Amino acid sequence: MTDFSLQSWVEVTQESDFTIQNLPFGIFSTQKKSARVGVAIGNKIVDVLELANNGFIDFDTTLFDTDKLNDFMALGRPAASKLRNRLQELLNENNDELRDSTHRGSIMVNMSEATMHMPVQVGDYTDFYSSEDHARNVGTMFRDPNNALLPNWKHLPVGYHGRASSIVVSPAEIHRPKGQTKADDAAAPSFGPTRLFDFELEMAFITCKQTKLGESIPIDEAENAIWGMVIFNDLSARDIQKWEYVPLGPFLAKNFGSVISPWVVTMDALEPFRTKGYEQDPEVLPYLKPSKDANFDIHLEVALQPENGEAQTICTSNYKFMYWNMNQQLTHQTVNGCNINVGDMYASGTISGPEENQYGSMLELTWRGTKPITLSDGSERKFMQDGDTCIMRAHAEKEGVRVGFGEAIVKILPAT
Amino acid sequence: MTDFSLQSWVEVTQESDFTIQNLPFGIFSTQKKSARVGVAIGNKIVDVLELANNGFIDFDTTLFDTDKLNDFMALGRPAASKLRNRLQELLNENNDELRDSTHRGSIMVNMSEATMHMPVQVGDYTDFYSSEDHARNVGTMFRDPNNALLPNWKHLPVGYHGRASSIVVSPAEIHRPKGQTKADDAAAPSFGPTRLFDFELEMAFITCKQTKLGESIPIDEAENAIWGMVIFNDLSARDIQKWEYVPLGPFLAKNFGSVISPWVVTMDALEPFRTKGYEQDPEVLPYLKPSKDANFDIHLEVALQPENGEAQTICTSNYKFMYWNMNQQLTHQTVNGCNINVGDMYASGTISGPEENQYGSMLELTWRGTKPITLSDGSERKFMQDGDTCIMRAHAEKEGVRVGFGEAIVKILPAT
Repeated sequence: MTDFSLQSWVEVTQESDFTIQNLPFGIFSTQKKSARVGVAIGNKIVDVLELANNGFIDFDTTLFDTDKLNDFMALGRPAASKLRNRLQELLNENNDELRDSTHRGSIMVNMSEATMHMPVQVGDYTDFYSSEDHARNVGTMFRDPNNALLPNWKHLPVGYHGRASSIVVSPAEIHRPKGQTKADDAAAPSFGPTRLFDFELEMAFITCKQTKLGESIPIDEAENAIWGMVIFNDLSARDIQKWEYVPLGPFLAKNFGSVISPWVVTMDALEPFRTKGYEQDPEVLPYLKPSKDANFDIHLEVALQPENGEAQTICTSNYKFMYWNMNQQLTHQTVNGCNINVGDMYASGTISGPEENQYGSMLELTWRGTKPITLSDGSERKFMQDGDTCIMRAHAEKEGVRVGFGEAIVKILPAT
Repeated sequence: MTDFSLQSWVEVTQESDFTIQNLPFGIFSTQKKSARVGVAIGNKIVDVLELANNGFIDFDTTLFDTDKLNDFMALGRPAASKLRNRLQELLNENNDELRDSTHRGSIMVNMSEATMHMPVQVGDYTDFYSSEDHARNVGTMFRDPNNALLPNWKHLPVGYHGRASSIVVSPAEIHRPKGQTKADDAAAPSFGPTRLFDFELEMAFITCKQTKLGESIPIDEAENAIWGMVIFNDLSARDIQKWEYVPLGPFLAKNFGSVISPWVVTMDALEPFRTKGYEQDPEVLPYLKPSKDANFDIHLEVALQPENGEAQTICTSNYKFMYWNMNQQLTHQTVNGCNINVGDMYASGTISGPEENQYGSMLELTWRGTKPITLSDGSERKFMQDGDTCIMRAHAEKEGVRVGFGEAIVKILPAT
């Protein structure tokens, strides 16, 4: 049970995502410290390696003297719970062990002095397509408003494999990708920078379990394999996608860069925000039937900031809008015997809500460019322009206390 | 220039794939030797670690004291050429350095005493769809014989991301996968073992270069990034694929197990077999236009062996039937700035030839099951049955000398 009245001796402002109830894990470095495991609280980072070096925690120091969380994740959720509980104890306002220690200075690092790195070595990456409102919007635009969802959509969490190598950590800069596109009235395709550069508001979970080829993860065991979550911006080139994606799915339209938030929020921290998902009708097959609520109430938002302008929120959505939940996704992924590894990443697909301001992509927000958005500087956007910065934020909140993800930020640079 | 008259003091039979002109790299272990780098010749393996330990080659021993070729591959093609040239010298019938050395016994290992392992740590895996005859067959069966190829097919090498974790080394045993399928006349999908279990005859290349996100590999530089090739059996569940793959492509129909041959044949060894590919018409966009021949004449075959029966060849094809070549595939993959890593794997897609006995899958050979194949034991096959073993072989040949890949073998076990 999370105690929302708990306070830390570290200053944590009302708007901070990184409360003592959260304590997400990441990889950071500073001018003096090599890349290592850290935990965020307020605007500080707890150097977990230094904690271990000085005997504050009972873990092998090599787990934290590394630029990836994989080895620690491989110990599973119980180890993460144990460490997080101990950190909550050490950071409690009534605990003086660390607060009054001579090591405090070397253990508590200012976030402003740190560089964040990719938190995990991603083995394989899957992208699902699990928001009904998103799938319905896309189906309505490109196919048939009366049959917007394809026949398989409500029977299985549709997903596809993505490129792991091009997932990078926020803040990122990504060049506008080039590729083949073909206008409907053109005889042949042409080559050049995408004209329909979009973001996709997604969340991703990361697995902490290794299975053997041939093994499946039953739905009631899926949660044990899910360690934590990040924000995921699945950048997309809509015109490249349109020309390439039939029949084998998106390829170059998606693999030029995806941006994640640097702090991995544990499922322990998200537990208080567990909620019901949409009712699933028709009934799903038995292997996909969850025995408990498995969605999470996480507020999501996207802001777009023009070059030299102010950021403006253009979408507010929620992770609870997902039709298919994480357990169903992971169970489906492995039902055929597909093996998983520690550090695999599974993104949700664009998370749109039922309202027009809850759509998680420019494609939907501007309805294929037919309803441009006006930004703070008066300029209009159908899709993203060079110089724009896309900022995604996510947090859960209870009793005035936030458990948040920070930001996934990407600036769009011109094509090379 | 390859000297096809070159002979080794190691016995190499006429039918051996592993001549002194080949010298493919792999990872092996024995009861006494931990997994390490080896090179195949005849029915022997040269223990490259022991070669280095005893000063026969001028390389850092740590490159070979490992269960993956990645570190050695990362040195690029020139390092592989240098080592391969030195091995050709050491194994030459006129050279006594190794032949008459007291270390010969510890360096030359009997293949029959070795276990082969995955040769590389695969970062990302892409599967292309680059054989015109295959694409045309599939389009004819499932769409329209008059418009069998989709509009994009001749303008770009269609590809999609696959699952790296489930690529395993031959000989393998794979359980029949389970999943959702839906009969055309059924109201809802059902769950169970695939009924349409297929192989796909493919070849894959492996990259030896790491690029940064945003970088592209021009077509004339693609070859420098391609280290070698293996046979690739892209096992497929056709009924699962049919129900799941619209709109985002194959997922669980393909990621339950792919089987590769254990020996990586270098592009140096394949150089004498370079040949013209199909003429590309319409003309491809400039970024895909190769300046030289970039296909390879590699004979391919598939045999199917029923439980307790004789293996029977059911398909003979050739890698030269590829419409899109490797350089075009890799250039296309990176033209949007997608980064690549050492050890990435890129499969060709099913390689079918124009003749009916050259089709690279059961789907095509039996034309969706309408023309069953009769096996040596008199039994019929529309698709693969439990207990069947699928054996793929590949070799190039010139002046009676083979440069071959060995075998990719998989036995089909019943669903779990």
